[in-house]
Amino acid sequence: MTSHWRGNGARALIETLVGCGVDTCFMNPGTSEMHFVAALDDVPEMRGVLALFEGAATGMADGFARMAERPASTLLHLGPGLGNGIANLHNARRAGSPVVNVVGDHATYHAALDAPLQSDIAALAGNVSGWIRTSSSPATVAGDAAAAVAAAMAPPGQVATLILPADVCWLEADGPADPVAPIARGTVDEAAIDSVAKLLTEHADDPGSVVVLLGGNVCRAADLEAAGRISAATGAKLLADTFPTRLERGAGRPHVDRLAYLAEFVELQLAGARHIVLVGSPEPVSFFAYPGRASRLVPDGCTVHTLTGASDDSTAALGAVADLLGTPVDGFTPTAPGRPALPTGSLTAPDVCNVVGALMPEGAIVADEGNTAGIFLPGATAGAPPHDWLCLTGGAIGQGLPVATGAAVACPDRRVISIEADGSAMYTLQSLWTQAREGLDVTTLIVNNGSYAILNMELERVGADAPGPRAKELLDLSGPTLDFVSLSEGLGVPATRAATAEELADQLSRSLATEGPSVVEAIVPAGI
Amino acid sequence: MTSHWRGNGARALIETLVGCGVDTCFMNPGTSEMHFVAALDDVPEMRGVLALFEGAATGMADGFARMAERPASTLLHLGPGLGNGIANLHNARRAGSPVVNVVGDHATYHAALDAPLQSDIAALAGNVSGWIRTSSSPATVAGDAAAAVAAAMAPPGQVATLILPADVCWLEADGPADPVAPIARGTVDEAAIDSVAKLLTEHADDPGSVVVLLGGNVCRAADLEAAGRISAATGAKLLADTFPTRLERGAGRPHVDRLAYLAEFVELQLAGARHIVLVGSPEPVSFFAYPGRASRLVPDGCTVHTLTGASDDSTAALGAVADLLGTPVDGFTPTAPGRPALPTGSLTAPDVCNVVGALMPEGAIVADEGNTAGIFLPGATAGAPPHDWLCLTGGAIGQGLPVATGAAVACPDRRVISIEADGSAMYTLQSLWTQAREGLDVTTLIVNNGSYAILNMELERVGADAPGPRAKELLDLSGPTLDFVSLSEGLGVPATRAATAEELADQLSRSLATEGPSVVEAIVPAGI
Repeated sequence: MTSHWRGNGARALIETLVGCGVDTCFMNPGTSEMHFVAALDDVPEMRGVLALFEGAATGMADGFARMAERPASTLLHLGPGLGNGIANLHNARRAGSPVVNVVGDHATYHAALDAPLQSDIAALAGNVSGWIRTSSSPATVAGDAAAAVAAAMAPPGQVATLILPADVCWLEADGPADPVAPIARGTVDEAAIDSVAKLLTEHADDPGSVVVLLGGNVCRAADLEAAGRISAATGAKLLADTFPTRLERGAGRPHVDRLAYLAEFVELQLAGARHIVLVGSPEPVSFFAYPGRASRLVPDGCTVHTLTGASDDSTAALGAVADLLGTPVDGFTPTAPGRPALPTGSLTAPDVCNVVGALMPEGAIVADEGNTAGIFLPGATAGAPPHDWLCLTGGAIGQGLPVATGAAVACPDRRVISIEADGSAMYTLQSLWTQAREGLDVTTLIVNNGSYAILNMELERVGADAPGPRAKELLDLSGPTLDFVSLSEGLGVPATRAATAEELADQLSRSLATEGPSVVEAIVPAGI
Repeated sequence: MTSHWRGNGARALIETLVGCGVDTCFMNPGTSEMHFVAALDDVPEMRGVLALFEGAATGMADGFARMAERPASTLLHLGPGLGNGIANLHNARRAGSPVVNVVGDHATYHAALDAPLQSDIAALAGNVSGWIRTSSSPATVAGDAAAAVAAAMAPPGQVATLILPADVCWLEADGPADPVAPIARGTVDEAAIDSVAKLLTEHADDPGSVVVLLGGNVCRAADLEAAGRISAATGAKLLADTFPTRLERGAGRPHVDRLAYLAEFVELQLAGARHIVLVGSPEPVSFFAYPGRASRLVPDGCTVHTLTGASDDSTAALGAVADLLGTPVDGFTPTAPGRPALPTGSLTAPDVCNVVGALMPEGAIVADEGNTAGIFLPGATAGAPPHDWLCLTGGAIGQGLPVATGAAVACPDRRVISIEADGSAMYTLQSLWTQAREGLDVTTLIVNNGSYAILNMELERVGADAPGPRAKELLDLSGPTLDFVSLSEGLGVPATRAATAEELADQLSRSLATEGPSVVEAIVPAGI
């Protein structure tokens, strides 16, 4: 509490957020949030970033957190606004991204009147939040905000939802609150470290019999280097989660394959494994269930060991195991530099991946929602200069464009490459407008194959009898064809269309070299 | 159950829906819904309408129900898909629209594995649904579907959510189930009818001292005619809900003013009222709370009486009161035909309203999300040929374009006019693509003033001290300017832009006379 401080709850809240290191708010406010908006003029340290849709705002907060390693806040409008933001909060939850999710509400005394926008915000928030609190008075709002930031930063990171009644914002408050220290990461049992090191040593004569499975939050360079030392010393096979939160990869860094999206390929990846060591990862399971197929993907006869859980210090644990094995700190195999040749002629989805691999600049941040069109991206970019890879952590499409936007806000000195499938792009396309408004250096590559190609594949895979014409039509996006050049320009972002490999290389090069956002639409054949 | 019937749960479900009169499904499916999609080829009576975003699909189901007076179904993809659809299900809930909200889920045995897309669907659905059931086996799915339809049609209509695990769809089922009769509307107490008639008679010498307040579902022609008879006979003042579900109005029909959106104007509308008679309506409350202003809008000293609740037969009750008063069946005052003159010169928001009033064809269905730009629409269209008016029932913006789309699916022989504010249009713009795909006769008029004008107004009204530049910037949509012609064309819908009144009249006339969808963007000055 600050003596002589004067202001309302909104100002106390925002000053507290800033004091706790939360200086960016991705927002789509309404009437009940107007005092929050007005208070931004009193606290210039807080940057308000406007989104045209709440699902864009929440995805931006996720992308920001993945790169900045600290939370941004959101500002959403009551239950329906939170509803619009749920899908990307789901992805943030699965990412373990810290998000201070601020949801405006009616004034405390107004709720009982069941006005048209009244709904049960806490019930909605429960689905995606590790922490929920309704701020009940201007005397507590600052402390609530500090608690929300600490909760968001609880390892590995989570969505903390603060429900903010309008009168709590507009009434006089006492001043900002001091930061609250988040709980620390769990320390790792020495016994677990010893036991995993022993297991690895015992199986060193049988390469691949032990799989070390890295969770989506254990894919930073330090994690991969420690895991790479372990693999080099013992022959253990490294695998990472299908959709990591942030994978630091590229030339000079240890390579790790990700678990495949399709269960049948995971079965191939895990064939021969007798032990799986989980490092901040759950057991491998199929993304979806399919008739007659297993959902649990641990092979029969394979034993599962846990080195660390999601909230433990996996980086330290991996390092301790590697040290115990006596491997040198540089004892991992660096990925050799290498890029694919630029393709020529007509354009296919693999060509698109090769163009990206050929041109990606050092330090790029890739937001990957290429879906089927991006299947060959990991291979095509493995030897590119060091970069970060951000994945669709929760499987809720519509995450790529906003995550790219938030990452660009967090890292203004780096180039963001946003790789989008046509179907997914249509969920949160509004993000492009925010990129233009904020002048963000984002290159968006939309791969347009005119279909929900992944669903055509799934329609076959789920064992549906020979799909009929009506089913196929419902997965077809070509009537009418989406024109992403017009759509992008309508949102204020310049765009070009590439129909050949040469055009794509030319347009992508230019986009990567141009300040601010631009879009390249790559037209590829339907299907995978 | 049908003898010799063979098929899976999805087919049994869809055949049951069709047998219950639900023959349209607005869908945005994913992998867990592929058996539902495949089964559409077995049941040609079910029309699948693809939306590019779930929030568009749910709004379409709402619009369909408002016009067809029977539910459509949705098909959404797990928790995140339902999340994307929540805002328009909230509007449907407030509309009392029947919706059979089908949400696909993981296979029953897959849920425990916490795969990436696992979430608590029922918790999300609770916010918007009057009925929720998870279908647990292919033996019960058909009965569950019949129960869902009956629940959706429970008066006045509600969202019934059926959660549909993937294996329940793909396993062999027993066949479709018979329809279940929905519960009937509540009958109205004779005593209430007598008492209201007596009250009206006693105050007939003091016109305006009694206000008859019609709920959003009591605004059909028959309701207004009965209420109009009452008003003509007793001098009672008629008012309707701010945002009716479906208001039948225009020349020859009784006129009713809607409660104002802003509380201070409601206070003027209700000044002098000594009695308010609620007819399927809640008590009037302010849409939002404001510092120092009342949230309850019943004047001091005014007594509130209830003729009917939301699920009662208000039409019959109004008729009974009118009969008891001895008024003839045509004893209401019909609205005189009349249209505004076509404006000329530079274009303002009131001009836009006058152009609509001048040109609107008979039988038009207006989906009104014009917000501040549409303030003058009710007056400008009051004497236009008979038409239906569909409002933003729950206040969650992003409802207009999908409601227009669903209404056009329900009423292929009528012209739908979708009036949209620029900010609201950006929430569910994907709806235009479905309009093109289905060849729907929808004229969309987007009023572009380059701002969240309503929030600029609210920023002043909430009593925020002189708004600063940063606050104002966050309500400004002009950097960059949204180009709705490009956006519409990108979605496959032809579009034109009008900067003068003459251009608007010309373009709107052409759109209204052209089969299929088209968009007219009207550029008006910022502000209200």
